[in-house]
Amino acid sequence: MSEPLYVGVDVGGTKVAAGLVDAEGRILSQIRVPMISHSSAQAGLDAVLSGLEKITAGSSGVAGIGICSPGPLDPVSGVILNPPNLPCWRNFPLAESVQKVYRVRVRVDNDANAAALAEVRWGAARGYKNVFYATLGTGIGTGIVFDGQIFHGRTGAAGEGGHNSIDYRGPICGCGKPGCIEALASGKAIARRARERIMAGASSAMVTMAGGDVEAIRGETVGQAFLAGDTFAKELIMETIEMLAVWLANMIDLLDPEVIVIGGGAAMLYQPFYETLRGRIPQLTVNPRAAEVPVLSAHYGADSGIAGGAALCT
Amino acid sequence: MSEPLYVGVDVGGTKVAAGLVDAEGRILSQIRVPMISHSSAQAGLDAVLSGLEKITAGSSGVAGIGICSPGPLDPVSGVILNPPNLPCWRNFPLAESVQKVYRVRVRVDNDANAAALAEVRWGAARGYKNVFYATLGTGIGTGIVFDGQIFHGRTGAAGEGGHNSIDYRGPICGCGKPGCIEALASGKAIARRARERIMAGASSAMVTMAGGDVEAIRGETVGQAFLAGDTFAKELIMETIEMLAVWLANMIDLLDPEVIVIGGGAAMLYQPFYETLRGRIPQLTVNPRAAEVPVLSAHYGADSGIAGGAALCT
Repeated sequence: MSEPLYVGVDVGGTKVAAGLVDAEGRILSQIRVPMISHSSAQAGLDAVLSGLEKITAGSSGVAGIGICSPGPLDPVSGVILNPPNLPCWRNFPLAESVQKVYRVRVRVDNDANAAALAEVRWGAARGYKNVFYATLGTGIGTGIVFDGQIFHGRTGAAGEGGHNSIDYRGPICGCGKPGCIEALASGKAIARRARERIMAGASSAMVTMAGGDVEAIRGETVGQAFLAGDTFAKELIMETIEMLAVWLANMIDLLDPEVIVIGGGAAMLYQPFYETLRGRIPQLTVNPRAAEVPVLSAHYGADSGIAGGAALCT
Repeated sequence: MSEPLYVGVDVGGTKVAAGLVDAEGRILSQIRVPMISHSSAQAGLDAVLSGLEKITAGSSGVAGIGICSPGPLDPVSGVILNPPNLPCWRNFPLAESVQKVYRVRVRVDNDANAAALAEVRWGAARGYKNVFYATLGTGIGTGIVFDGQIFHGRTGAAGEGGHNSIDYRGPICGCGKPGCIEALASGKAIARRARERIMAGASSAMVTMAGGDVEAIRGETVGQAFLAGDTFAKELIMETIEMLAVWLANMIDLLDPEVIVIGGGAAMLYQPFYETLRGRIPQLTVNPRAAEVPVLSAHYGADSGIAGGAALCT
């Protein structure tokens, strides 16, 4: 009897990525198909089914299909509620619709929750049962794993740590709250902070890197400038490390995890400072064992949605 | 056969309160004995045993003893680690020491966790399984009940929502973090904010109420002034309601509870605004069902430690 294979599907606003994952979390193959987020519900479903058809062609023994989708969604029923980034689906029974075709177990969750579970099953948090996972990218997503399972709360909406405000008089986040860590430390937010401070007189190589146009500074520009030794970029990043320390100390005081795992496209900016973070956090918490909590880099990168989808089936 | 009775014990720095609680959460009787927090470990234990002896005299059928103690502590082993407010106990096996004498189940937890459980078993949150409880007093304590049980995290240190910072550049809390809600909205913090603003020129009836001495303004003074119609006190409280709204929205985004319960000595300041809070919170979260989450007054007041201790045995 062969090992079970899982299919992980990562649904985004412009593409669907699907991959075949083995029982050890190795991604054996992956493909992408286009997605039009403003299409009909059926066209959106067809994109997912087309990805599934391509990735499963010739494979037998698929034990389950796990789909990461923008939320809000109901992970129990597999219904996609009303994601702002995916207008094609409104109260759409995604899991049920896919299961009608494939007749295996189909699970649906948001990408950060799923990626957190993949890190626990196969990645940086293997061997741990209580994990706080954060993906730092254009936005900030988080997933809480408690006792080896995703912590969903009452309605499946728990684990939105990116919307933990550490600045109640700060910039208003997309969620309406002022000062969410997403509005301060995401790639988008750090670029905004850079632009504002440069407009106010700070000098930085970022301006030249953005072709002389301050408005063209992006998170990537801050990263580039930092790697090139730009003092202002370093200053911005060290300020952000302090924000992240307060935020992660919040998480430790609330959730008491065994380990913190950080992934996402902006993580490379912060990775050189994980030991700084780890040293700072215990000064900011009542948790007597905070110093024992490692801050680790995620194992999965851009393919965390595929691995995460697969992990949902385990 | 008679109904089981539980004993709830509330250990503080200056007294031990003990009460007999029935299976419906009614406190049948209660007593207090003095506690000297700087005494020896044995003297501290003797205070607890003396309280237990008095309250159980003549009662048969005690099914369990639950003790609320200042933390940090280990709720699994029942060991009190190193509470700043209770220097008599350092790594002291409280549960085991009491069990040697009484030979019933003995549980130990911190007061906010225990009080949260009492609200779920017998109080305002009866019928709910996922609850966020906050006690607003001199400090701010919180307890998370998930699936009907206290959420303890890895080491028993979870649920410290009073140390969720909403102001990373704010006043430094006792835990070391800047801007914890405890450092902004506790009775002590609101009094500090009042004093600072009055020193900076704000006019308020509080000064007269404190005998002309700004330094003598306490949380109670703010409450008195508010009830007397003082405009500045009202302004302070409305600012605090906004802080509490951001903080509770943080909790909803992270934990997705069914209900929020608020108790504690300072709650009377905020109680007239629970519907304001409830209306504001959904504007500050990504949780699609935040508007459904009630904000309720705790059932237990000053006796929440006794009820909480008893609830630990259920």
